Amino acid sequence: MNEFSLIKQYFQTSDNQRKDVLIGIGDDAAITQIPEGQLLATTTDTLLESVHFLKESQPSAIAHKAMAVNLSDLAAMGAEPAWINLSLSIPKADEIWLRAFSDKIKELTEYFSVQLIGGDTVKGSLAITITAQGFVPSDSTLTRSSAKPGDWVFVTGTLGDASAGLDILLGKLEAADPTHKHALVNRHYFPTPRILAGQTLRRLASSCIDVSDGLLQDMQHIVEASGVGVILHLDRLPISRALGSTVPHLDQALGYACTGGDDYELLFTVPEVHRVSVESAMASYNIPCTCIGQVTGANGKVDLRLDDKEYELPETLQRGYQHF
Amino acid sequence: MNEFSLIKQYFQTSDNQRKDVLIGIGDDAAITQIPEGQLLATTTDTLLESVHFLKESQPSAIAHKAMAVNLSDLAAMGAEPAWINLSLSIPKADEIWLRAFSDKIKELTEYFSVQLIGGDTVKGSLAITITAQGFVPSDSTLTRSSAKPGDWVFVTGTLGDASAGLDILLGKLEAADPTHKHALVNRHYFPTPRILAGQTLRRLASSCIDVSDGLLQDMQHIVEASGVGVILHLDRLPISRALGSTVPHLDQALGYACTGGDDYELLFTVPEVHRVSVESAMASYNIPCTCIGQVTGANGKVDLRLDDKEYELPETLQRGYQHF
Repeated sequence: MNEFSLIKQYFQTSDNQRKDVLIGIGDDAAITQIPEGQLLATTTDTLLESVHFLKESQPSAIAHKAMAVNLSDLAAMGAEPAWINLSLSIPKADEIWLRAFSDKIKELTEYFSVQLIGGDTVKGSLAITITAQGFVPSDSTLTRSSAKPGDWVFVTGTLGDASAGLDILLGKLEAADPTHKHALVNRHYFPTPRILAGQTLRRLASSCIDVSDGLLQDMQHIVEASGVGVILHLDRLPISRALGSTVPHLDQALGYACTGGDDYELLFTVPEVHRVSVESAMASYNIPCTCIGQVTGANGKVDLRLDDKEYELPETLQRGYQHF
Repeated sequence: MNEFSLIKQYFQTSDNQRKDVLIGIGDDAAITQIPEGQLLATTTDTLLESVHFLKESQPSAIAHKAMAVNLSDLAAMGAEPAWINLSLSIPKADEIWLRAFSDKIKELTEYFSVQLIGGDTVKGSLAITITAQGFVPSDSTLTRSSAKPGDWVFVTGTLGDASAGLDILLGKLEAADPTHKHALVNRHYFPTPRILAGQTLRRLASSCIDVSDGLLQDMQHIVEASGVGVILHLDRLPISRALGSTVPHLDQALGYACTGGDDYELLFTVPEVHRVSVESAMASYNIPCTCIGQVTGANGKVDLRLDDKEYELPETLQRGYQHF
């Protein structure tokens, strides 16, 4: 099998053809059409074996995560996903692996109504780069840089589950209850991009980011981009029952929730005037979301409170992946 | 240095801001604007060390090639390049390497008036994935699939130089003349995407592809996509003086020209009615181009002729990179 027949067999499908894709896989470039009045959102993320996923990960989990991290970036911009480019570096053309990987890509492109429009397949150590493209209405861009003092800080879902799941897989954390264990490990393998939440926030939130590097690190990105400060009330952090029961010590649970990465929840700020709208919109879509703090003046810091007292996270519990 | 400071220091620049980039590097996704009446062209290519470039390659040459191969795909669609996403996997944050690499990216983004709008930086074996985006007018898409019997087959520039240059670097080929040697090695390291040629061909050529895998393999792509056949006259292939003098045997020169990859010339077909327009447009832009054959009926084959006799390339001279 050569590169071209591999692409044809596993990735060039006639299903799920979007009307805005004029030329998809199979030419030198894809040709697509942006709807009138919409801007283009583009994001790229690379996943490497042993860095972004464990060596023993199933191909379906790798495909899921590669899609999810990119769609999550679009979600954080309030974008509607449209097209995907996939660059795949694999050590060999293993048909079972490729079938499982490409089936998951296909399943997710259908679920999210996106189309795979191009890519590249090369022989090398396992690495997946996806470039995801989507639309945002030109009058409602959601960025990291417009948080204002007084705005409320919210987060969707629960925090810390994915990194606790990773620690279970690495043998660093034990989960006695198999249901909890399954829930946490699943959060690591199959994160859910908050597409609908992002689109809901477009005209309501003042800033937004997805929690990929850990709450504190990602909060810091908003703080720096917006030139503000933030107070976070750690007692209000949404901790799942699975994490809470598995990690009985509060400090340890807070460690996961504050600095564990890969949750792909949305962290966003909301002006007082939109707070009720956000809460009722999220409730009507059944998206859990919690107010965890408030934006302050321009001190450039993320200040932590526990039961209204200043709090510092023990250094041993700090995570947040650093590549270099 | 962490990932964020690395991106800030080397890739986040305030120069070369295009007006159609509303949000560039530094948020979850870039936000850009497509001009009215234009379609979006998107292409992705990954370059791996020891596969797409030699281990000892200079960072500037790697950056050049990563940009060129992607811009060449846009050229083959007749697109006007606009934006670049760069995903960089590097074994360590080597400041000298990063400075040289990022300087070359900056130089080329300025030269081609494109803007780096996003990307990813991870720690891993050296690999570069670029996604390039550009525009094509909605009424003049250039593809591989519309060659018609009777159309003339053209190619820009000269063929085989890049792979001869690679063979010189690998010690498989000797070039006595230092000027010729330099010329061939340079074609390997610094290919030129034929952007202007591609845009010129938009309303004139019936099909187009860039020569990345070798003339015969890329010709075959047009033949299959268009459902035609092609006769190529090998005696008409444009061979540079550097290649012709370095490789005195005709068969060997034809081997490089037919199956050596990485030339990034444009291979295209032109209806008789547009032949003169193409030749004069190319001449006026000073772009060398040569008629090397003609499209025939639907036999799905690339037939070779030498001095009007059927010819088969000796198997030992066949190249054309196969990943798997």
